[in-house]
Amino acid sequence: MKRHELERLAKHYRAGKVTLADFCAQVMQPKSEQLTDTTLDIDRARRCGFPEVVFGEGKSVETIVEIFRKQQERGDKSLATRIDATKGAALKEALPAAIYHEKARTFRMPSNEPTWGNVGLVTAGTSDLPVAEEARETLRWMGIEPVFIQDVGVAGPHRFGEQAHLLSDADAVIVVAGMEGALPSVAGGHLACPVIAVPTSVGYGASFQGVAALLGMLNSCASNVTVVNIDAGFKGAYLAGLISLRVHQAKSQSEG
Amino acid sequence: MKRHELERLAKHYRAGKVTLADFCAQVMQPKSEQLTDTTLDIDRARRCGFPEVVFGEGKSVETIVEIFRKQQERGDKSLATRIDATKGAALKEALPAAIYHEKARTFRMPSNEPTWGNVGLVTAGTSDLPVAEEARETLRWMGIEPVFIQDVGVAGPHRFGEQAHLLSDADAVIVVAGMEGALPSVAGGHLACPVIAVPTSVGYGASFQGVAALLGMLNSCASNVTVVNIDAGFKGAYLAGLISLRVHQAKSQSEG
Amino acid sequence: MKRHELERLAKHYRAGKVTLADFCAQVMQPKSEQLTDTTLDIDRARRCGFPEVVFGEGKSVETIVEIFRKQQERGDKSLATRIDATKGAALKEALPAAIYHEKARTFRMPSNEPTWGNVGLVTAGTSDLPVAEEARETLRWMGIEPVFIQDVGVAGPHRFGEQAHLLSDADAVIVVAGMEGALPSVAGGHLACPVIAVPTSVGYGASFQGVAALLGMLNSCASNVTVVNIDAGFKGAYLAGLISLRVHQAKSQSEG
Amino acid sequence: MKRHELERLAKHYRAGKVTLADFCAQVMQPKSEQLTDTTLDIDRARRCGFPEVVFGEGKSVETIVEIFRKQQERGDKSLATRIDATKGAALKEALPAAIYHEKARTFRMPSNEPTWGNVGLVTAGTSDLPVAEEARETLRWMGIEPVFIQDVGVAGPHRFGEQAHLLSDADAVIVVAGMEGALPSVAGGHLACPVIAVPTSVGYGASFQGVAALLGMLNSCASNVTVVNIDAGFKGAYLAGLISLRVHQAKSQSEG
Amino acid sequence: MKRHELERLAKHYRAGKVTLADFCAQVMQPKSEQLTDTTLDIDRARRCGFPEVVFGEGKSVETIVEIFRKQQERGDKSLATRIDATKGAALKEALPAAIYHEKARTFRMPSNEPTWGNVGLVTAGTSDLPVAEEARETLRWMGIEPVFIQDVGVAGPHRFGEQAHLLSDADAVIVVAGMEGALPSVAGGHLACPVIAVPTSVGYGASFQGVAALLGMLNSCASNVTVVNIDAGFKGAYLAGLISLRVHQAKSQSEG
Amino acid sequence: MKRHELERLAKHYRAGKVTLADFCAQVMQPKSEQLTDTTLDIDRARRCGFPEVVFGEGKSVETIVEIFRKQQERGDKSLATRIDATKGAALKEALPAAIYHEKARTFRMPSNEPTWGNVGLVTAGTSDLPVAEEARETLRWMGIEPVFIQDVGVAGPHRFGEQAHLLSDADAVIVVAGMEGALPSVAGGHLACPVIAVPTSVGYGASFQGVAALLGMLNSCASNVTVVNIDAGFKGAYLAGLISLRVHQAKSQSEG
Amino acid sequence: MKRHELERLAKHYRAGKVTLADFCAQVMQPKSEQLTDTTLDIDRARRCGFPEVVFGEGKSVETIVEIFRKQQERGDKSLATRIDATKGAALKEALPAAIYHEKARTFRMPSNEPTWGNVGLVTAGTSDLPVAEEARETLRWMGIEPVFIQDVGVAGPHRFGEQAHLLSDADAVIVVAGMEGALPSVAGGHLACPVIAVPTSVGYGASFQGVAALLGMLNSCASNVTVVNIDAGFKGAYLAGLISLRVHQAKSQSEG
Amino acid sequence: MKRHELERLAKHYRAGKVTLADFCAQVMQPKSEQLTDTTLDIDRARRCGFPEVVFGEGKSVETIVEIFRKQQERGDKSLATRIDATKGAALKEALPAAIYHEKARTFRMPSNEPTWGNVGLVTAGTSDLPVAEEARETLRWMGIEPVFIQDVGVAGPHRFGEQAHLLSDADAVIVVAGMEGALPSVAGGHLACPVIAVPTSVGYGASFQGVAALLGMLNSCASNVTVVNIDAGFKGAYLAGLISLRVHQAKSQSEG
Repeated sequence: MKRHELERLAKHYRAGKVTLADFCAQVMQPKSEQLTDTTLDIDRARRCGFPEVVFGEGKSVETIVEIFRKQQERGDKSLATRIDATKGAALKEALPAAIYHEKARTFRMPSNEPTWGNVGLVTAGTSDLPVAEEARETLRWMGIEPVFIQDVGVAGPHRFGEQAHLLSDADAVIVVAGMEGALPSVAGGHLACPVIAVPTSVGYGASFQGVAALLGMLNSCASNVTVVNIDAGFKGAYLAGLISLRVHQAKSQSEG
Repeated sequence: MKRHELERLAKHYRAGKVTLADFCAQVMQPKSEQLTDTTLDIDRARRCGFPEVVFGEGKSVETIVEIFRKQQERGDKSLATRIDATKGAALKEALPAAIYHEKARTFRMPSNEPTWGNVGLVTAGTSDLPVAEEARETLRWMGIEPVFIQDVGVAGPHRFGEQAHLLSDADAVIVVAGMEGALPSVAGGHLACPVIAVPTSVGYGASFQGVAALLGMLNSCASNVTVVNIDAGFKGAYLAGLISLRVHQAKSQSEG
Repeated sequence: MKRHELERLAKHYRAGKVTLADFCAQVMQPKSEQLTDTTLDIDRARRCGFPEVVFGEGKSVETIVEIFRKQQERGDKSLATRIDATKGAALKEALPAAIYHEKARTFRMPSNEPTWGNVGLVTAGTSDLPVAEEARETLRWMGIEPVFIQDVGVAGPHRFGEQAHLLSDADAVIVVAGMEGALPSVAGGHLACPVIAVPTSVGYGASFQGVAALLGMLNSCASNVTVVNIDAGFKGAYLAGLISLRVHQAKSQSEG
Repeated sequence: MKRHELERLAKHYRAGKVTLADFCAQVMQPKSEQLTDTTLDIDRARRCGFPEVVFGEGKSVETIVEIFRKQQERGDKSLATRIDATKGAALKEALPAAIYHEKARTFRMPSNEPTWGNVGLVTAGTSDLPVAEEARETLRWMGIEPVFIQDVGVAGPHRFGEQAHLLSDADAVIVVAGMEGALPSVAGGHLACPVIAVPTSVGYGASFQGVAALLGMLNSCASNVTVVNIDAGFKGAYLAGLISLRVHQAKSQSEG
Repeated sequence: MKRHELERLAKHYRAGKVTLADFCAQVMQPKSEQLTDTTLDIDRARRCGFPEVVFGEGKSVETIVEIFRKQQERGDKSLATRIDATKGAALKEALPAAIYHEKARTFRMPSNEPTWGNVGLVTAGTSDLPVAEEARETLRWMGIEPVFIQDVGVAGPHRFGEQAHLLSDADAVIVVAGMEGALPSVAGGHLACPVIAVPTSVGYGASFQGVAALLGMLNSCASNVTVVNIDAGFKGAYLAGLISLRVHQAKSQSEG
Repeated sequence: MKRHELERLAKHYRAGKVTLADFCAQVMQPKSEQLTDTTLDIDRARRCGFPEVVFGEGKSVETIVEIFRKQQERGDKSLATRIDATKGAALKEALPAAIYHEKARTFRMPSNEPTWGNVGLVTAGTSDLPVAEEARETLRWMGIEPVFIQDVGVAGPHRFGEQAHLLSDADAVIVVAGMEGALPSVAGGHLACPVIAVPTSVGYGASFQGVAALLGMLNSCASNVTVVNIDAGFKGAYLAGLISLRVHQAKSQSEG
Repeated sequence: MKRHELERLAKHYRAGKVTLADFCAQVMQPKSEQLTDTTLDIDRARRCGFPEVVFGEGKSVETIVEIFRKQQERGDKSLATRIDATKGAALKEALPAAIYHEKARTFRMPSNEPTWGNVGLVTAGTSDLPVAEEARETLRWMGIEPVFIQDVGVAGPHRFGEQAHLLSDADAVIVVAGMEGALPSVAGGHLACPVIAVPTSVGYGASFQGVAALLGMLNSCASNVTVVNIDAGFKGAYLAGLISLRVHQAKSQSEG
Repeated sequence: MKRHELERLAKHYRAGKVTLADFCAQVMQPKSEQLTDTTLDIDRARRCGFPEVVFGEGKSVETIVEIFRKQQERGDKSLATRIDATKGAALKEALPAAIYHEKARTFRMPSNEPTWGNVGLVTAGTSDLPVAEEARETLRWMGIEPVFIQDVGVAGPHRFGEQAHLLSDADAVIVVAGMEGALPSVAGGHLACPVIAVPTSVGYGASFQGVAALLGMLNSCASNVTVVNIDAGFKGAYLAGLISLRVHQAKSQSEG
């Protein structure tokens, strides 16, 4: 609650326009709601731009359905990640209007709003596809359809260069790569916008389930590369979407 | 070189407007210049928005001065990081117009251009100051003076909340934290914009020179947190500046 | 054996009240009992306040039943942890009076004694529930029903604050969290009592099965946070219960 | 602010007993104070029982003196840790009434209040002394003089047993050990109270600066062992002191 | 081949007692034999006291049977480790005279020779039993029946002491322990003979599949503790057996 | 495109021998081809000597078949690694002319060309066979049949020496070893040619799935040992094949 | 105290031969003595064969001198390890009869007793000498002069073989090696006796201060290799000495 | 000794052309020579192509001079690495004809032989220069002057491409890179010859002194990349030199 809101409310209360109980309730209003075994953050969309996203691992179908229903009631868009095929089928049965994407392991409510935003999404290899699909589904949930370039890792160093011009308008580019994770550095060297690097667990031996790629990206000699967790397609997309949103809002404001 | 540029050049050559030598030189034009023991990327500013920044560790004063002079010739803004006090003094003697910041360990050419941009810069503790100063000097080199909030780590969890409103207009917020690195998650929970988390090597024992903070930030349950290398004040600032630049350009374009 | 006990026994022996054999047996009395492949510590309850607890992993049903039966004979309360569903069913068949909790993976003898103690139990996310349930079952075995607050992680930073007052009387609070493990620091900043942090293996990628949370908690900038092993719901609860027991005893002593 | 406090304040305001400005100020009162480069948590003592403690590493003498002076003004007890000898001398000059302990690397204001509490402090080896001294100075700052037992590591397994009876009344026992860190397990097996294990960086080779001891303690088969960071004498003491405080308060309440 | 052997052979050859072909064959005699996909070290028993032992993981039943048969031909005793139940059954079918031990996962040819040697074998917990059984089967293959003491970990610190006298004649004692691996240190403090510590992967979380125990043992403050690989029951036993063999031989020599 | 190629093409264009469209297409000619979810590097064979090899993990049968067919069209030799038995069977059905090797987990098109080259391939133990088979299949795909020596690890130190003469003509020797990975050092001490060390994940406990072998090989005191990733039979073979190719070409050139 | 000792003492007491005080003192007799900040284990020589050895790191000259003097009084042999040159000089001044060895960093009292025992001591490289010297000084303190073979690492694989015959009588062989630590495996393959492997921190890069050597040794494919801590020359020697002592005693007993 | 050599020698002996002593000496001839604390491998040049190289760390000036003098006597070329400036000066004084290179930290005897070979040497950044200089000095010791390309890391991705043609004739290319170590992958994608990747410790934070670069290189998606230890300029050069030597010999043989 901001100071000026408090002042107005206090005046209303003093003037008898609101009861003491209402006054206290509003000053101390809860921003979360108790579900069966969840404390839902119902203030997230106002505070952060997008509602709470469900991390599906270790949560029951019942829990996820309850959250989705509560968010639908409030008019919030719903997204759950890390949903395996079995859980996906059960969710689909409970919420037939939603979209389950098996490769991405995401479950989300579709949207009818027009798409917006300029985000690039690039993979180093075909094996990185599941993580990229999680990113793409997250962007779609935000309302963005990304420019998608696949399988342009550095072993064929010309491949990225041949398609880099497709990314010249992007507000942010997500680069998904496993093994040595070198593609974000090369992409960063070509591009002027922020590059969100998503290391994947693709590889074997000393890739250590993505640690090699993660370290490579953290140590990128390109200045415009930032990093999220291993296999965090969702997070990479969310960040890129947020950046594009701010540019989009800046354009809209000026245009309006 | 884009296709339409090549076509135009080919026509000019066919028409005899350019010689074969010039034609080949332009198609194959070098984008770097050989200095004594440096291959300077002279195309960086055009390609990436800002010129190459010098990583000062392991470079001699002579090498750095040579790069700065070459960049001055080309009208590029210069910045070097990881410059210790001894090297800083020698550089200052060679290039008296430049600014050496001892705590930040940066050396840069000053700018007369007006500042622009909306970036927040937050530290968890007073011991994180050197990394934050590197970030602040980098932002200044880019032309941005950030909103700076210090020492609001989670052990006093109300401290960040009390000043969070100062960051409500930021295009991006840099959060610098050592030890358990929890502040970016809390900041991410309060803010709608991207949070660039910079882990620091502040701590002892199982902080492992910043690894604990780095891992904490990579695993942040807040969706809008992305991470750069340990003690990478420069990189955190560069990313935040790039984001703000795009918003700034979007505003300017529409306004223009 | 304490000195004064030895003196009394020696006098009795000299006075012929005890035989040499009995005298030696008492001075050297075994404090453990040999079962089939277990050396049961039958002195634990006297020495440490509670009897030995069975770590169920890698132990056969026969071994566990034998220990429970021996403890029942001695009037000791029994608890086994890390019991999977198959083993749980077999144990339940052998000892029908006992309680198997599938989510907690615990097996214990119920108690008729009244509950006592003031312990808080908090989770960062719904996925942390199994570890929290292990903690809750352990507390119940000790005779304590904790105040239980769920899913109040730092991404919705107000959620913990909204319910923190429920913990104001706690002698100790157990905080169970995975991913970056930041909640114990925030809880520690709000609370005056000891906070027992239990890292969980919830997360993915660079969470390294709980290592990120563990390191975060060890490096907590809140002074009142101490840590147990990853997923060690049992141990967190045992410590919290011990602290509450001492406070309980102090009250009882003075009251008595 | 608790609900009943808010209600009372609202009624006073409505009744005209407090002005709107005062009303707002009290509802939104800041709990921290801005120093030069510190945001001091001035509410900590009320909220957590003890005021903020200064982590001295990376802080200037000026910063520390400013914090101590502010705390003195407010009547708070001051303690700073990780103060090397040079900084200690400078601090001593600025604040001659304070006590600098070179081995413990602590700097604190002395107290005239009577001591209270029952805490044990045990070291495995003589080389662990500096960490133990940090713990002892922290306890003294809290008002506790611990029972101190030195150099009773497990290579001479009878040594701890010979003195264990001195700890029978302790509310909590701090065990400081490096190398394999086995002493807390053995102490835990002897004692009924919580054991706070403090791993130290004493050792060489595969001790990895205390990691071996830390892991050993986290995996202790004794149920009553909890762990703090490597070399965290301060934290171990703070936790033990808090536990003893709650027992002390319980006794006092009942007695009162 | 030793010098004096060569001299004698050379003289024989010069004297025509051996042909050139035989002479060369003996000087260059192979010490290994090519099996299907194995280069069997047929000189091992002469050189090292015992024949080659088969590491069963990743080897086919056919390979193992071929090795056993070749060793039987040569009169060598056979042992294979890391044999799972399926492979064990197939081996038993092919070589019915051999002994498969399911818990130990060993397969060996029985021996009719009298037992000899003084070796102790101790476990910290019942869950360490499989590793201890591998050690026991290895000792039996060497001809030794160890003194076996189970489940005497340090959480009940008196348990080891109560049975330590059973080990007073041992030439070497194997101590098998998981979790924090503290028992070898305590045993080392009680015993005068070498202690071979075998860390096990028993534990969870920060035990890291035996790393915590391994590090604990490597850093043991007891001087007489040496360490083998995690879960290396075979190796611990082999070392202890070798030590006992040398003592046994010394006794026999003098007695003879 | 090299400078002299560009000059010639430019002259042809100026002379009207090629159209503008063809001229541009040739200057900017793509070196990759878009398949369904692959960007195939069709220039690899020209640039690097051998066409792109398919990393089979995480790729569908359809994707692999599409790549093989495209390569067949272009006359390129095809190889895929990390193909499990199920995928192997499906591939075999789609491309019956190809060879699936179950132990090696490779799938490749056979060749009718004569073999060439001098490469040695050595294993430390029989359990290292699958990795060695991957190497052997890769060499066969390159057209080389290696000298293959099995199971000559350092525990029988004479075994390698007995067969080392078979490697005296090799241009490069691949040494495959798990556990402590010592064989490459010993081989390096015997041989004059480069030794490509391939660590395997064979071992247990502190082998950490091949990390011990990897580190051992990286730290080899033999100067001629270089290392590839854990279990990277393919890469070891590819490197050795490349070295032999250069020697082969040098001979051919001179001979030609 | 053994049972039969207790029985005899009890009878004496009953018979009035010892007073109650003496009786209790003897049953409960302390086995350690309190020095200034040391609890000296004065029972160690009786229990373990050799008195307590001082780990010098982090101990003051005063502390060490006090321990040495106390041990001299009791007729115990004294040894301190990890004594740097400065401390060594100060100790030498206080105890002029003792021997300080700068390379070994040991300080010990000399002995006049005749040497005994058969121990081998081998280094892989000249840089491993300091650790080997610590081992040699420890053996001398035990009364053993080892067979010492230097600089025979596996890069020159014949070097060890040429001198291996010098070790054929050894009861145990200590092998000191850094880098990849392969020598113990090779030595183990040649020798029948136990090999105590001592990894050293010699190396660079991925040797990780001895971790590579440590892991290599733990994973040795030679069955008779056991391992101590990195740079633990003392411990390796102590173990080897203990083994030789048992063989020596066996010979003496039979001979006697 | 090869079989045919043995046969000839045996015949000579039988024929009385060599004495028994000489015969034995030749069959068993030592291949190493005992210096003060070194066992010099005097057979290395014959066996491996080049004589033993001295790892200078931890070796005294006396030791190194003794080795150099012995090698000079034998006509072997001498090289020592890891020689700091102080040691370098002392060596230079003892052996004035030798060359000390401060940046490379190498000390070697110069050669008058003509250079030969085709090796490329590339650095990612100017800070990698010391490691590259060690490589260059090693190559010079072997007789090779490499093509040297500096500072062409991937942040300016065109820089390598602009100079790649200079490497088209190389038999092997050494790529030296720190930070994320991505350059070898890109180079591997451009080149047909083997790429020897040398990770350097250049970087900070999560570069972990070169581990990030090492892992990146081990996981390179380019098939022709192999790796040596961190900062191992010597080893990278030695390998590349060996490869070039074999090609050189193949050419010479055919030409001859």
